[in-house]
Amino acid sequence: MTEPSRIAACLIVIGNEILSGRTRDANVAFFATALNECGIRLGEVRVISDVEDAIVETVNAVRSRYDYVFTTGGIGPTHDDITAASIARAFGVRLSLNEEARERLAAHCRSRGVELNEARLRMAHVPDGAILIDNPISVAPGFQIGNVFVMAGIPSVARAMFETVRARLEGGSVIRSRNVGCRLFEGEIARGLGEIQDAWPDLEIGSYPSWDDDGPVLNLVLRGSDEASLDRAAAEIASLVRSKGGEPT
Amino acid sequence: MTEPSRIAACLIVIGNEILSGRTRDANVAFFATALNECGIRLGEVRVISDVEDAIVETVNAVRSRYDYVFTTGGIGPTHDDITAASIARAFGVRLSLNEEARERLAAHCRSRGVELNEARLRMAHVPDGAILIDNPISVAPGFQIGNVFVMAGIPSVARAMFETVRARLEGGSVIRSRNVGCRLFEGEIARGLGEIQDAWPDLEIGSYPSWDDDGPVLNLVLRGSDEASLDRAAAEIASLVRSKGGEPT
Repeated sequence: MTEPSRIAACLIVIGNEILSGRTRDANVAFFATALNECGIRLGEVRVISDVEDAIVETVNAVRSRYDYVFTTGGIGPTHDDITAASIARAFGVRLSLNEEARERLAAHCRSRGVELNEARLRMAHVPDGAILIDNPISVAPGFQIGNVFVMAGIPSVARAMFETVRARLEGGSVIRSRNVGCRLFEGEIARGLGEIQDAWPDLEIGSYPSWDDDGPVLNLVLRGSDEASLDRAAAEIASLVRSKGGEPT
Repeated sequence: MTEPSRIAACLIVIGNEILSGRTRDANVAFFATALNECGIRLGEVRVISDVEDAIVETVNAVRSRYDYVFTTGGIGPTHDDITAASIARAFGVRLSLNEEARERLAAHCRSRGVELNEARLRMAHVPDGAILIDNPISVAPGFQIGNVFVMAGIPSVARAMFETVRARLEGGSVIRSRNVGCRLFEGEIARGLGEIQDAWPDLEIGSYPSWDDDGPVLNLVLRGSDEASLDRAAAEIASLVRSKGGEPT
């Protein structure tokens, strides 16, 4: 399979709660879809634990390989929120109190009648040189340093933060998709499907089988940036399905 | 946060359908929970694309660092099923027709009245030296080579395959958890929680905030292998919550 060449991103999910099975991830599908809308391909996801060495090593391994890196998780006020300090170490810079972030948190605490204590002040510390990412939901900001965007793990906050940085992202051509469904087994159409893939090297054709109570369910998904190519290749796949006795949907 | 030291695994999800946002992953939470039941910590997850270089590089990067590596996806009959060939390349061995796998597929095809064509025969090819992993659902086997277990991506098949290898896995002590819920903001208990974490270095204490219509929801999760330590630390956290005006649940 060829892969459309374009701007690519890596998502780093920082979260013991995903790795322990306690929480089911809700950010991967959002980032995959939202990035695609920007013309950015999600090339890889890494789910890592709340351990400083793991964060430093992973960030440094991927930030030179991808155009953009997004992290989620670990930017709150508790002892397990070590993302900002780890990112500072990854970039070899200091973690400092950001005056703008402190003011936002102070105003938010005043309005809620709670104390801006030492724990909450942790959330106003960002690596030197970082740009704040607005948090329209719970105020404590994320930040961008270089090509790394550091965001909250709570899905609603991660989404709101992404919307505030969307305009900063430079994407390539947007990837569209077509789906041809049928009730055949993969093995029936595999050879013909491979020939169609070979004939359309600029498209990415995936075959996703499953079952329901009535038997096999097969989704043949085409992805690419050229609508005309997608339509023509999808028509070829529909013909292939019909030639094997299936009904393309 | 300290991390319980024990047998660790990495899960590699091979799947453009997850990275494109088309399909929401359903395997991570299963593996996290099932491995934990075996006394194996899921240390990392990587979601990568159906590209041979990505598979080879990722498998070789993680197989020396984790006790066990599990892969899901890419072992079917279509052109985008390149996992077996990629794993063979990662281990520097040939991909060969496995006679046992071929016989199983042939019997299955006969029973269904379909042809064992070239595409289906792809599923009987495994790296030299690999041991088959039974597939009680759709027959086409997975395989184990070294510490790498190669499984199907369809969740029901991945789960069935995992059950057939569960007895092969050597785990450490099983990690248990306790949860203390309350309706406080993280910032209220962050300092005290950090002190409790410091006092219990063998436990991993995570703080997971969210919201509902009634305000903040905070789950404080303790994980560790010693039940008595878990109970005592959970009681300390409940006291902390009460001291801040909350009601631990």
